[in-house]
Amino acid sequence: MSTYTRILLAADFGENYRYVARRAVDLATRYGAELSLIHVVENIPTGDAGYGPIVPFEIDLTEQLVEAAEKRMTELGEELQVPVERVRVEVGSPKHEIIRVAEENAVDLIVVGSHGRHGIGLLLGSTASSVLHHAKCDVLAVRLKDE
Amino acid sequence: MSTYTRILLAADFGENYRYVARRAVDLATRYGAELSLIHVVENIPTGDAGYGPIVPFEIDLTEQLVEAAEKRMTELGEELQVPVERVRVEVGSPKHEIIRVAEENAVDLIVVGSHGRHGIGLLLGSTASSVLHHAKCDVLAVRLKDE
Repeated sequence: MSTYTRILLAADFGENYRYVARRAVDLATRYGAELSLIHVVENIPTGDAGYGPIVPFEIDLTEQLVEAAEKRMTELGEELQVPVERVRVEVGSPKHEIIRVAEENAVDLIVVGSHGRHGIGLLLGSTASSVLHHAKCDVLAVRLKDE
Repeated sequence: MSTYTRILLAADFGENYRYVARRAVDLATRYGAELSLIHVVENIPTGDAGYGPIVPFEIDLTEQLVEAAEKRMTELGEELQVPVERVRVEVGSPKHEIIRVAEENAVDLIVVGSHGRHGIGLLLGSTASSVLHHAKCDVLAVRLKDE
């Protein structure tokens, strides 16, 4: 059977993102796979819904979020020794962007943190779950332990 | 970080179950983990819903399914060199039984085949998705390639 050769870590910056990151690094090491990182800045629902824009100056806000995310992802990349060209910040729907980048880069395993389905998670679903439903490659959901 | 020490393969007998099985064996080898197998025979909805039993002789039918499953699981266990005491057939809801057995045996990774969400899968959801939502450990969804 083929081994994993390209692993994509979908990083958020929740409390335990380093735990998920270490799991991805551990897998990449054991498989001799190339590790890439992605973080997706979610689109902020703005624009005119008939009663004026919900958030004014939305472009600046998104830009600020992207800048902050790029700073943290650069740090995470250095910490995990992932070269800068394999560290990406995208803007959009996490599910869509993770899957798009995975497909474009022939990723064979996506590693994503998984929160329990309770509270607001039950209502919103989770990135792990969405990615699982739509990815064309394997998905490792790393259960976060603090819940 | 802790490595995986107990891996549970949730086996179905779909077209590509051997592909998922090989992935589980490969992971168990790389992590030096103990591999267990489970197959769940789904409860057949029987009983009197007010207009008589849907399936007569339901006990025999379940027994026959369990016997057939035990035969195949014994063969799979031999093929994967998993000792017989770590090969189980349970009856009930796949999600519940997989999660119950995982918790009772302190499993830290469940490996399950993942079908695309289309056709009837879209309607019914999938075992992979249900397990992901409720497991207290990591879940690897192995994407089946023939879809």
